[in-house]
Amino acid sequence: MFGEIMNSVRREKPIVHCITNYVTVNDCANILLASGASPIMADDISEVSEITSIASGLDINIGTLNSSTVESMMLSGSVANKLEKPVLLDPVGVGASKLRTETANALVNAVKFNVIRGNASEIKVLAGGRVKTRGVDTEIALDSLEEQVEMAKSLSHETGAIISITGETDIVASTDKVYLIKNGHKMMTSITGTGCMLSALITAFISANVDREMEAVLTGVACMGICGELAFERLKPNDGNLTYRNYIIDEIYNMTSDKLESRIKYEVQ
Amino acid sequence: MFGEIMNSVRREKPIVHCITNYVTVNDCANILLASGASPIMADDISEVSEITSIASGLDINIGTLNSSTVESMMLSGSVANKLEKPVLLDPVGVGASKLRTETANALVNAVKFNVIRGNASEIKVLAGGRVKTRGVDTEIALDSLEEQVEMAKSLSHETGAIISITGETDIVASTDKVYLIKNGHKMMTSITGTGCMLSALITAFISANVDREMEAVLTGVACMGICGELAFERLKPNDGNLTYRNYIIDEIYNMTSDKLESRIKYEVQ
Amino acid sequence: MFGEIMNSVRREKPIVHCITNYVTVNDCANILLASGASPIMADDISEVSEITSIASGLDINIGTLNSSTVESMMLSGSVANKLEKPVLLDPVGVGASKLRTETANALVNAVKFNVIRGNASEIKVLAGGRVKTRGVDTEIALDSLEEQVEMAKSLSHETGAIISITGETDIVASTDKVYLIKNGHKMMTSITGTGCMLSALITAFISANVDREMEAVLTGVACMGICGELAFERLKPNDGNLTYRNYIIDEIYNMTSDKLESRIKYEVQ
Repeated sequence: MFGEIMNSVRREKPIVHCITNYVTVNDCANILLASGASPIMADDISEVSEITSIASGLDINIGTLNSSTVESMMLSGSVANKLEKPVLLDPVGVGASKLRTETANALVNAVKFNVIRGNASEIKVLAGGRVKTRGVDTEIALDSLEEQVEMAKSLSHETGAIISITGETDIVASTDKVYLIKNGHKMMTSITGTGCMLSALITAFISANVDREMEAVLTGVACMGICGELAFERLKPNDGNLTYRNYIIDEIYNMTSDKLESRIKYEVQ
Repeated sequence: MFGEIMNSVRREKPIVHCITNYVTVNDCANILLASGASPIMADDISEVSEITSIASGLDINIGTLNSSTVESMMLSGSVANKLEKPVLLDPVGVGASKLRTETANALVNAVKFNVIRGNASEIKVLAGGRVKTRGVDTEIALDSLEEQVEMAKSLSHETGAIISITGETDIVASTDKVYLIKNGHKMMTSITGTGCMLSALITAFISANVDREMEAVLTGVACMGICGELAFERLKPNDGNLTYRNYIIDEIYNMTSDKLESRIKYEVQ
Repeated sequence: MFGEIMNSVRREKPIVHCITNYVTVNDCANILLASGASPIMADDISEVSEITSIASGLDINIGTLNSSTVESMMLSGSVANKLEKPVLLDPVGVGASKLRTETANALVNAVKFNVIRGNASEIKVLAGGRVKTRGVDTEIALDSLEEQVEMAKSLSHETGAIISITGETDIVASTDKVYLIKNGHKMMTSITGTGCMLSALITAFISANVDREMEAVLTGVACMGICGELAFERLKPNDGNLTYRNYIIDEIYNMTSDKLESRIKYEVQ
């Protein structure tokens, strides 16, 4: 099944509209191409609704927000909803500033996201901001995997989105189903944009697999992790994080059903 | 001759002012440096006319437009015209939104471009938008190479620009002369920014060869294609599109007259 | 000592807030991660003061200025000063336009910088613009190393900042102490962003070594130069400037106290 999900991206070549940050945008475009999808980056308010309309899916990433892109995100999100195109939120750095926290919350309130993907602390802020009884400023200790799973399920319940928390163990959760994925390599934290790239990739996977979203997210997360493992195995003594970044994208380009099926490590909870 | 054209870039080190998208801007800067040119990126309305004034050429790329950069493009274009500096238009994604189509048309109407470079569908939209009897929204079937050549010549006639359509066979056309170039590799479509990089490169080539523009464009297009071939030959089994991108820029850096002269494949029509 | 300075970055993992250009931002993020620091890029006026507050240091780079980022730079600079966090200025392209020259001068007047780093012509413009008797438009011939050192000391006296001029010989100067560093490789000029990356790196080094700033700047400059040498040694026949860029960041990732201590070449003046 995982190979099939991946191959449908290569076959359907979904156009993925990214409203994303300028730090990792080139890597996002190249990983989308590596997966078989077709990236289109556009953030001006006067064109984003048209771009979303011709795309198969929408990836909203708040990494380098500014006042005009916030409006574009809101507009594109609503167009995607109206046209029933899958839309993903990557709440990069939410919690680090009011602008990010308010924008992420406003987006979650206004747009029905198919997937929200972040690290544990980002998802914690988002869940905390929405659980009114706790408040966004309260320190919430949520370190164990069990607690993260509960948080993901609860945020999924509130938003209707599949929640993916990536870290040492990756979580993909809906209200009634949870996948725990054990692929990946710790060196992935030494690169900027692994999260952004994964979010772009997941958007491609759900765009080409609208009838099996949970499995598409699981496959996207596992695929990235496996490429992190394979890329690490290729490193020679003097290679560092830049070569590692290049090899991860290369591995997405060279991924096959066989590699994916034989290396995926996950459990259903 | 081709080697001479290339070497004049290395000798004169033209400063190329790029008003370009944030997706592929780093690659454009590095390919310019690889060719011997010197990139300067600036898009704020309050400085672009000065930057164009100190540059040898101007590359306008509409990949990630926003309302303020549109004004900067118009201003820089007119400054380049007044100072008789070569200026190129890369109408990325024209046709995908009103903003892009209107901006590209407005630029073509206001600025005398030396070169317009795009893929077949971009040039089709641009030509269609200007052939008033057809209208921009009419579906125009223009798939054969012959039809593309006619379209390029016609757009050249209307705009006074050299038109370059890149694809499986690359076209460089003026009203009375057409070059067809057969270099390149299909894997070049798996990278973001091959078109953007080529546009930057052509701007460097025409900036250092103002008295032989057609040949400079031909050389730039062939040079990129040859580097796509050489880079492909270097790929090892696990290399993918990211390594391929890196190798293409590396090959520009290592290009010699001999390689260029012996590998160029073109015909005059 | 140099190894200690470098290792304190790996140990303390300072968060470096970069308000920087969109050309080389990805490389800046990756070199910061390679050094052990943690990058955060944010430029919107409504969040920059919060981001500077949670960061350990601030890197202001004027490579692709626009009217809104100028305000953000002023605000973040003043927040950094108030909170006594180290702040660096990289006056990219100052002198090329009024906007850049006025912004750089306004920043130097409003913000107390810990370090200002640029090439000789950038520092010359900055020094010239501040030496009122000469005026910014006067041609000042300052080519010899001795003259550059005098200029650096004089600018340091006026601004209170450590001045670093990078070129064939790198200078790190305060009013009463000057280091001359002989590391580096001339191929570093064939890459976009070597200066930007170095500025980001120095910000990380001073953020983790607030009690020994001069030595931290010296170490950062030498570290970059040594990586330029080591990366050059790794190049194979067909490698060019893109692979070289990747290897430089890789070498930062793999830098050790031993390599640093054994290869550093500097003298005190």
